[in-house]
Parts: sequence; C-alpha cells; structure tokens
Amino acid sequence: MKFSFKNDYSEGCHPNILQSLLLNNTDQQAGYGEDQYSLQAKELIKERIKSPASEIYFVSGGTQANLIVISSLLKPYQCVISASTGHILNNEAGAIEATGHKVLGIETQDGKISPSDIIPILKNHSNVPHQVMPKLVYISNSTELGTIYQAKELEELSAFCKEHKLYLFMDGARLGHGLTAEISDLTIEKVAELTDIFYLGGTKNGALIGEAIVINNPAIQEDFGFNIKQKGALLAKGRLLGIQFLELMKNDLYFDLAKHANQQAMKMKNAMAERGVQFLSDTYTNQIFPVISNEMIEILSEKFEFYVWKKIDEKYSAIRLITSWNTSDEAVDSFNEMINSKLS
Amino acid sequence: MKFSFKNDYSEGCHPNILQSLLLNNTDQQAGYGEDQYSLQAKELIKERIKSPASEIYFVSGGTQANLIVISSLLKPYQCVISASTGHILNNEAGAIEATGHKVLGIETQDGKISPSDIIPILKNHSNVPHQVMPKLVYISNSTELGTIYQAKELEELSAFCKEHKLYLFMDGARLGHGLTAEISDLTIEKVAELTDIFYLGGTKNGALIGEAIVINNPAIQEDFGFNIKQKGALLAKGRLLGIQFLELMKNDLYFDLAKHANQQAMKMKNAMAERGVQFLSDTYTNQIFPVISNEMIEILSEKFEFYVWKKIDEKYSAIRLITSWNTSDEAVDSFNEMINSKLS
Amino acid sequence: MKFSFKNDYSEGCHPNILQSLLLNNTDQQAGYGEDQYSLQAKELIKERIKSPASEIYFVSGGTQANLIVISSLLKPYQCVISASTGHILNNEAGAIEATGHKVLGIETQDGKISPSDIIPILKNHSNVPHQVMPKLVYISNSTELGTIYQAKELEELSAFCKEHKLYLFMDGARLGHGLTAEISDLTIEKVAELTDIFYLGGTKNGALIGEAIVINNPAIQEDFGFNIKQKGALLAKGRLLGIQFLELMKNDLYFDLAKHANQQAMKMKNAMAERGVQFLSDTYTNQIFPVISNEMIEILSEKFEFYVWKKIDEKYSAIRLITSWNTSDEAVDSFNEMINSKLS
Amino acid sequence: MKFSFKNDYSEGCHPNILQSLLLNNTDQQAGYGEDQYSLQAKELIKERIKSPASEIYFVSGGTQANLIVISSLLKPYQCVISASTGHILNNEAGAIEATGHKVLGIETQDGKISPSDIIPILKNHSNVPHQVMPKLVYISNSTELGTIYQAKELEELSAFCKEHKLYLFMDGARLGHGLTAEISDLTIEKVAELTDIFYLGGTKNGALIGEAIVINNPAIQEDFGFNIKQKGALLAKGRLLGIQFLELMKNDLYFDLAKHANQQAMKMKNAMAERGVQFLSDTYTNQIFPVISNEMIEILSEKFEFYVWKKIDEKYSAIRLITSWNTSDEAVDSFNEMINSKLS
Repeated sequence: MKFSFKNDYSEGCHPNILQSLLLNNTDQQAGYGEDQYSLQAKELIKERIKSPASEIYFVSGGTQANLIVISSLLKPYQCVISASTGHILNNEAGAIEATGHKVLGIETQDGKISPSDIIPILKNHSNVPHQVMPKLVYISNSTELGTIYQAKELEELSAFCKEHKLYLFMDGARLGHGLTAEISDLTIEKVAELTDIFYLGGTKNGALIGEAIVINNPAIQEDFGFNIKQKGALLAKGRLLGIQFLELMKNDLYFDLAKHANQQAMKMKNAMAERGVQFLSDTYTNQIFPVISNEMIEILSEKFEFYVWKKIDEKYSAIRLITSWNTSDEAVDSFNEMINSKLS
Repeated sequence: MKFSFKNDYSEGCHPNILQSLLLNNTDQQAGYGEDQYSLQAKELIKERIKSPASEIYFVSGGTQANLIVISSLLKPYQCVISASTGHILNNEAGAIEATGHKVLGIETQDGKISPSDIIPILKNHSNVPHQVMPKLVYISNSTELGTIYQAKELEELSAFCKEHKLYLFMDGARLGHGLTAEISDLTIEKVAELTDIFYLGGTKNGALIGEAIVINNPAIQEDFGFNIKQKGALLAKGRLLGIQFLELMKNDLYFDLAKHANQQAMKMKNAMAERGVQFLSDTYTNQIFPVISNEMIEILSEKFEFYVWKKIDEKYSAIRLITSWNTSDEAVDSFNEMINSKLS
Repeated sequence: MKFSFKNDYSEGCHPNILQSLLLNNTDQQAGYGEDQYSLQAKELIKERIKSPASEIYFVSGGTQANLIVISSLLKPYQCVISASTGHILNNEAGAIEATGHKVLGIETQDGKISPSDIIPILKNHSNVPHQVMPKLVYISNSTELGTIYQAKELEELSAFCKEHKLYLFMDGARLGHGLTAEISDLTIEKVAELTDIFYLGGTKNGALIGEAIVINNPAIQEDFGFNIKQKGALLAKGRLLGIQFLELMKNDLYFDLAKHANQQAMKMKNAMAERGVQFLSDTYTNQIFPVISNEMIEILSEKFEFYVWKKIDEKYSAIRLITSWNTSDEAVDSFNEMINSKLS
Repeated sequence: MKFSFKNDYSEGCHPNILQSLLLNNTDQQAGYGEDQYSLQAKELIKERIKSPASEIYFVSGGTQANLIVISSLLKPYQCVISASTGHILNNEAGAIEATGHKVLGIETQDGKISPSDIIPILKNHSNVPHQVMPKLVYISNSTELGTIYQAKELEELSAFCKEHKLYLFMDGARLGHGLTAEISDLTIEKVAELTDIFYLGGTKNGALIGEAIVINNPAIQEDFGFNIKQKGALLAKGRLLGIQFLELMKNDLYFDLAKHANQQAMKMKNAMAERGVQFLSDTYTNQIFPVISNEMIEILSEKFEFYVWKKIDEKYSAIRLITSWNTSDEAVDSFNEMINSKLS
C-alpha cells in the first residue's frame, strides 16, 4: 500500500472526536445547531479569537461555506475579486456564479492579493451601470499555493478594503496551517479583527467535515442563519459539527494539528532542499511543490502517491506534496530516506 | 431529564456506524466520494433495490437533496408540483425557489398526491408562455403527516406522470419508515421501478448525516455529479457518507431501524386508541398525531417533550409524537403508563 | 372585422407620441437613458407626483418592472406577499421565482390586500430559519380584477408595512385607470407618499412600451440602475421611453387617457346594468366582468372579441371586457345597441 | 452642436419604420408577438436566410438576447466561452452570471475565436466534477473590435463545436455590418447554416429597439418562448418589434443600412490612412480605431464627439469612431476635411 501525499483529507478524523461522538451518542439534543456541543464550541471559538461579538455558524465544507458567505453578502450586481488561483474560481464547478455573481480573477505569482492588485480592477470597473460592481475581496490563508499572509499584509489589505467599501472574506480551509507556519506573525485574533468574515477549516485539519464561519462585521450578521438553511447546509444533527469543533478547540488542538502537518512538510522540504531541489514557491505550510526529474518522480511513485502539478520542461516537473494532521514520522522518514538515497 | 419525542434526529447514530468509523479511521482513501466505502455502499444499494442501472450519489441532508435534484432536472421555466404540506414548500427557507423554480402547492387531506390532484393544475397552466410549466411531481414517503403510499397508488401516479411527461421524484427522508409500516405493500424495488429519482434518508434513520440519491431514469443520469459539487454538497471526506450507508445497508439494518421506530410509535398509538384518543390522521409510521386535552398535554409535558401541532378547539389540541431507531422500550412504556393512569 | 375588447394593448400608441418620435428622429442623443427626453420626462413625473426626492427609471414592460424591483430589494431568503390573483403569481412564467424568490399567495375576493390578510402569513412564517422571510408586499392598482385601492386602504396598508418592516410595492400597469376611476379618492401624490416603490404603466395606457419605476424610499435608491442593466432592460435608445413618457406627462395626458378608457367601460357597464346584468365584481375601471347567458355570448361574439372569463353555471358565464385609451364611441355605442336590442 | 461618432444608436430609426408605425397605429392586433407584422417579419427572415425550419423570436436589446439565449441553453453547471473582449464579459453588468453561468474569457488580438483558442480551455476544464463544463461558444460578428469572421473561419469553428458538442451562438448586434463589410465572404445563409442560434441586431442598424433571435438547431427550439416571457422580454405590443423587422427585411433594407454605415466609416478610414494614420485593428465595418496625437484629438473634439479608446503612449491614443445607418455625407466630409487640413 502506497502512502498518499495527495491531500489532507485522505484519513478520517482526530481520535478525540470519535471518542466524543461515542461518549455522547445517545444523548438527546436539539436539532439544527441548537445542541449543547455547538453552543459550547461557538463560545470556545469566540474566546479563542478574542471577538465576543462575532457570530458563528458551522457548515460541512469549503465550497458550501464560500457560496453561502458570498451569496449572502452581495447584491445581484456585485461581484467578487479573487486571485486567479482562488478555489472559488477554478475548483468549485461554478458554485459562486450559480448564485448569480461574477468572480474577477487577478493573476498573481504567489496566490496572494494586495491593494495594488485591486486598484486596476476598480478603475476598469467604473462604467456604471454597464459593468459589475466589485464588492468583496476573497483571499485564502494559507493559499491554494501554500503561501501565507503576514500581519502587515493583512492589515494593509483590510484598510484598503474598508476605504473602498469592499468586504474582506478569508477562506480558511487551511487557516490552521497558515497561522502556525513557522514564519507567520499573523494571529487568529488579528484575522478576526481585520476581516469582515472568515472561516476556520476543519475538514482539512482533523475533522470529518466542518468549517466554522465567523462573522465579525456586525452589519452582516443579521439573519445569516437563513442562508445556511436555504442552501441546504443546516444539518439536522448539528451535534456532528458541534462535537468536532468542541474537541478541536479544546487546548488548542486545532492549531497543534496544523502545526504538526506543517512540520512534517518542512522536514520533507528541508531534506529535498539539502539535496539542491528547487521549489515552485517558497512555502512554510503543509503544501510543498518540489521540482524534480521525471526519473525521480517515477522512483517516488513506487512508494508514494502525489499529484504531478506542473510540467517545467522536458526533464523536470513540479509535484505537489501535502501532509496532514495525521502524517506519521514513518511516512516522512521513509520519503526522506528515498530522497537521500536516490538524489545524490 | 425529559425524554424527547420531538423528532427522529435527537440522538447520534447507530453504534455499527461509529464502530466502522473507528476501525477505518486511519485508512487512506480517495476523496470526494471515490473511497472504497462509498463505492461498496452504492453496490449494496443497487443490489437491494434490484436496479443495477441506477446511479447513486450521497449527500448530507434532505433540503440539500431536494434542491440538487430539482434544480438539476428542470429548465428555467419549469416548476414543481407538491402537496401543500410538502417539506420543500414550507420548511426549506425557499431553497427550491432560490434555484429559480416555483413550487405549486396542492391542498390535500393526507399529504399525498394522486393524478386527480394534478389534472386541474395542468389545465390551469396551459396559457403558454405566460405561466410556468409543471414538470416534476414531488412526493414524500412517508409524508410529512406520517401517511404512506401503497403500491397501487404509486403505480397510478407513476403511469400518469409518464403519460404527461412529468418527472416523479420521491423525497425519502423517511422512506424506511414508509416502506416498513405494517400496512405498507410497497417495496423499495417498486420505488426504484416507479420513480425517476428518489432518495433513501439516513439522517432520520440511524445515520449522523446522509441521504442516498438514487437516479433510476437513465435520461437524467448524465453529468449529475456536477450538481452535487456546484451546490457545495460534495464532501472531501466522502468516506463519512460511504461508511454510514455501508453499515445501514448490511443485513437490512436500514429497514430494521425504521421498523423499530414504527413499532414504538404503534405501541403508543394503540395505548392511546384504547383509551379512546382520536388522531389527526391515521398513521402507521413513526409519526403520530393524537388529539388530547390541554390538561393532558400539561401532564405529559412533565416527563416528555413534543410539539403541540394544531389547536383543535378551546380544550383540545393535536400533538406530534415522533419515535426513532433509538427510542427505547423504557421511554415508550413510561409514556404508555402515564396514558393508562391519567386517561381513564 | 370584429372590434376587440380583449385587452388594452391591441392598438398602437397615442398620436402625440408618434408625432414626437417623427419630429425628434434624427436628433443625436446620449444612449442608455441619458437622453434629454428621458431626463425631462423624469422631472415632469417628479413634479406631478410632488416627490422631488424620488428616483425614476424607465423599462419596457410590467413583468420586467416586477422582476427588477423585487429582485433588487430582497435578500436571497426573503419573499413576496401577493394576492393570489397577482400578475406575478399567475401570469409571468415564474419570473419572480427565476430571480430566486418565493411568492406567497393570499386568497382574496377582490384582488386587494389588507393588513388582516398579512397578519396570518407573518404568524405562519415565524419558524426561523426554516421558512422564507416575508419582506415585500406586492399590490396592483387597479388590480387584475379591475378593483381599486382607496386612500384610507392604502394608508392603513402602508402604516402596517412600515410597522412590520415590509416593503410596499405597487404594480401600476393600470395605475392611471385606478386613480381616475370615478369613485377613487386616491391620488398619485398619495401613492408616492405611501409606497416604497411603484410604477406608472405606459403600455396599457397609450404608450407603445414603457413603465416608469418610481423609487420613493431613499434607502432603496442606491445603485438601482445596475439592476436595470443586468436584467437586460436598459435600452440603448432610451429616447424611445423618454419621448413616450414626456408626451404622456404633458398636460396630464396620461390621466386623461385612462379616464377615457374608464368612461367607455362605464358606459357599457351602465347599459348592461340597466338591463339587469350582474357583474362578477363591482369595478369602476376599464375592466368589467358581466355575467351573461351563453346565448348572449354567441350573439356578442359576432361583432366583438373578448375573453370568456369564468363559467358560472350551465347557462351563464362571466366575460371580461377591457376598454383602452383608444376605444371609440362607435365601438361602445355599437356594443350598447346590441345589448339594448338583444337583452330585453 | 457637435456631430457624434460615439456609437450607432444616437439617432432614432429609419423613416420607413416610423411611417409604418403611423399607418398601422390604430389597427387592432393580437398581443405578445402574435400580431400580423411579427408573423410576416418572421416569414421574411426565414426566406432571406434560406432556413425554413428556423424559429424566430423578437426581443428588445442585445443584453436581453444574450442572457435569454445563454440561460435557456445551459444546464446549471455549464459555462460559456467568450473572447475576453466579448460584450457579455465586460459590458452587461454580470447579466450572464446573474442567470447562474460562468463566462470564461479568451485573450485574443482581434476579438475573434478559433478552435485553437478553445482547445486549451477544454483541456484545463477536465477535472470532473470540480470545474464548470464549457458548453457554449459565444462569438460576435462584427466583433466588439470591428473585426469580422470570414466563411472559412466560421466553418472551421462550427465543425469544431459540433465535434465537441458545444453550442455555437453568434451575437449579431452588428451582424449587418459584419456581413456587408467589403471584404466579407460570409453570408447570412451561411450564418444560419453554421450556428445553432444567432441574432440579427436591429437597435444598432436602423431600428428603435429590436433583435431577432434565430434558432437553427431544432434540438433547442422547444418551448423557447417561455424564456422570453420569464425574463420580462415579451412585449405586450409585439407589433412594435414586428413592424420594425418587417420594414428592415423589405428589399434588404437591413443590409443596405449596414452597408451605408460601413462605407461612411471606410471613407474616414481611407482619408486617415492616406495621411499615414495607423489603426489599432484593421477593420472594414462601422467601427474604426485610428491612432492619433493628443493634439489632433483636441482639434477633432471641437467639432466631433467620440471615445478615446486606448492610450498608446504619452503623445498618441487610439480613438473609436462609429458610423451608423444615418451618418450623413456632410458629417463624413466635414470630418475628412479636418483630417486633410490638419494632418499634413
């Protein structure tokens, strides 16, 4: 059986979650997110992010979170600005457009957006009323390319958005990984302070399903729950989401799991870097993109699964390796051994 | 702690499911429904319903299933016919309309639709192109009122729909309960044969989440998976759905659980009937609607939770009692004792 | 050639409009509603309705006006309340639902809505977040049944809507006819004062196309023009709409045309009433619904076209007769003669 | 008063249209496109394009035509391929996305699409079901840049679309201009043969409003009229559209008007070319994009209105000049005189 570095959702969930599901299984609870676990989990999150006035909703997955957030905030003629690598642009089967909104893409090197990327878009969309009105900036942290936003970058982007009356929405499918990257100086408290709305991704960080949407801007909190229900995202047994986030938020398990994933990726990155391997982008999270020879790809494929991400030239391609909360030292060591023995 | 008869999603899931989640937790699997558990579960379902050419997709909940199915089948100007008690009409926050389609309601006594209910709707919607075009008949089995379709009724409805080029879609959130009602002569094989599309509800019958959409009509199978993704319903860890349905389909556990729920409800129904209690509708599934005095409602409320469904007059109201796969004999006995001692 | 009483859009437009189109044909003007005619017409309307802060947009037809207004005002989970005879419910091919919003129908006798009709709807839609949220009340004046709102009725409805934070939107496809009905004590100034938004219908009152949407509530004026463009309703040659409304607003031509239509209908109504004919509803506008014998229907059909509206019994049916700004005395006299000679 | 070369919708309509509106004004006709003028106009079009099995619908404008056609053809998860200069991408306020569909842009030099542009898009959208499915190719002729498709180009594109099961839709807002360009070897009969659906634009070619949607592919003709109504595009007085197209189709007036516009533009192009002026693109239709000095722009602005299209460098910009069916020799001569006298 090959070990898979294909993604961070290959395994089940953290054992604490299963244990709690077992322990609390026969407990009768209110449905639709009114259960005690969900209520407690929301309190824990608000304490952790130091934002008592935020409102929190749990949904099942990232595409669902993205389409609910975006469709709830925009008027029919308003649109989204996203990096062209944004998940909503390429990997959600047109989910955002299906709710009626255009997504404008920005070509970037690293999957990140800065005010200088947005300025030309605003300029080129000033022909009222013939063009869509940009109204929401969608960013991911960590990004789809494994890169992260630092505190100063998010502060500048946030200030710019406020100045131009744009909502700032952070897709946090891999927020744990972004914030626990060794070089990150951004904190979850800062994220809550600087964004209008964001989510804490559970699915890619130790949960079976689950993203916690956190609404910080009071102006967009009203009646948000209707959107969850209308889009088919309100689980009758909301306890399933509540229990998971309750366990993940206890003792910062959420961040520990992400840190583990990052560390395993860094071990592999370092091993390859020592052997002179170049990387498509310089990442510090659980996604790495080493550029290796076709021959080496073949060798690694005997023991490991991963995606070949981008052909570089006739001899070399970048591959994508993703680690998870559950990636074992054995898997990493075995990978690094192969690197050390075959890349000389 | 009061025992709740409020609904059939108050508890967690059947222990077999938790056990399988535990056992298979660290197994690496493909994402997005391509895991081994999902593939096996689909095979089991197709065997059980004797419909090898059907296609199956798992989603999280009923509203999600309804909106995906309906929006995928209809052209923009086509609409749905539903009983006015239909879940899609009253309890889904406009989920169907949000996908662009009108739902026409039919007033019924028992929550069921027959050809004679549809004929006047077709007649009244013949002013082309000024009116929506009825194209899909939405039914529930068991219905929102606890009633069921018998084989002959479904056969007639199915024939009528074919004749008038209407899709027939069965919401099976409580399909297990409908088919295992003691008086039911309808089988799951028949359902697969007579409907274009239906779903097997897991959430209300022993799963944590999960409905299995079964597409029988080959003309509507093509590319269906895009709809699941676009509506945010495709779980990265599809294994969560696969494992649940795999366990539920083994040895007909699914039907045994539903039968248990029905039987517990029938015990309560019989106890009340013996004491002369009338019922809002004559149901044989896990929903019963006894008409009792306000005084009796107060007495029962001391030990049990339930919804007061409908005021009948100044002294009497109908309440709704729902049992589940997990309703214990103790709870039922305790309820019946109270009935026997207080209703004399 | 039979004369048609089928509707009020059988003929072209008032000659003043054609004359102005001819006179101004080669004048170069800005496109998209920025032409001088449109700007002047808007000023004339604001003066006439004594509402200088209102904003005005011209669109082509009623369904277009309805879908633009409603979709621009509502959040995804909000819905419309309408009389069950409302044009948006039955005659617009699901145009409102196609923008994502449910329309709740109220059964009425006369096509009009009062606060007491709305109260039970609000009560029955309080199960947050499982139901749509009623947010906009749609009324027509005159209604689809030819009836009208009096000042006191509109005042009460407006106050109720304000109290319950509901938008009040008046479909004015036949607003001229409603306001110039001999018994009407409602004025256009009052309409502007009491509604959040309404439109002045041109198509059914002497224009070729055109409805003037008037937005009175400043809170819903912002960026409204985007909706016009996005729904394909912004004419490149906006002059076509501007010239028409400019002519219609000069010297109250708009109201004179409607009054003429009403008067012609009243002559026919009186002639029939004198012969003992009953009417389906007691209308004072350009729609009348006499109940006559099948024999008489046949006789009238030799010289006139009209719709048989509703079968009353084996011998009698209600027919619908509609007059227009262009219905001649000859046509009316000829009709009345036939009534007088054949109904004895 | 300056003469405007800003666009081809600054004036009213061809006098024949006004004359017919006058002559037929009091004629009573059926509503909603069932009038005699509309029926005759459709017959004339079918004869002219030699496609008796095509179906024809009249709507008011281009954005309306685009959104109706596209939303009627696509399933929710399907998307459009367009040149990045396509009107639907930049100038329709998100009208297509508002109906739920993504538009994928292709960067081109000349606003035209060839099979080799589409191939990489198909390749990059093969991750089923995570990406939208390309299903419709949207082209304009003449394009937004004034360029045209030749017969061979359209044949190749059409064959490619058929092979890949893509619909081919031609936006013909300026189809007359495209087909009557002096270098064009494409005919209207060929357009009807090679596209699934296209429209003949009236608004920019002598009508007040009006585009004639022509559906050639029988598989997409069924029930199309519902879409017209649902999107608010069905005029009660359809005669307004019928009369216009009837006049335009008589004696090929439609093509004569377009040819006139082209010729006037060519006179200006030639005058400038003789003086050594370069053009942004080499066009033969009624849009030309000369690159002139800022100084010259100022001089021309004293007598003419036009858009400065694109800054080339500090000293030069491209301007856009558009002629129409009504551009007089006087205007052109006056422009050319100024060129001749000032550009030496």
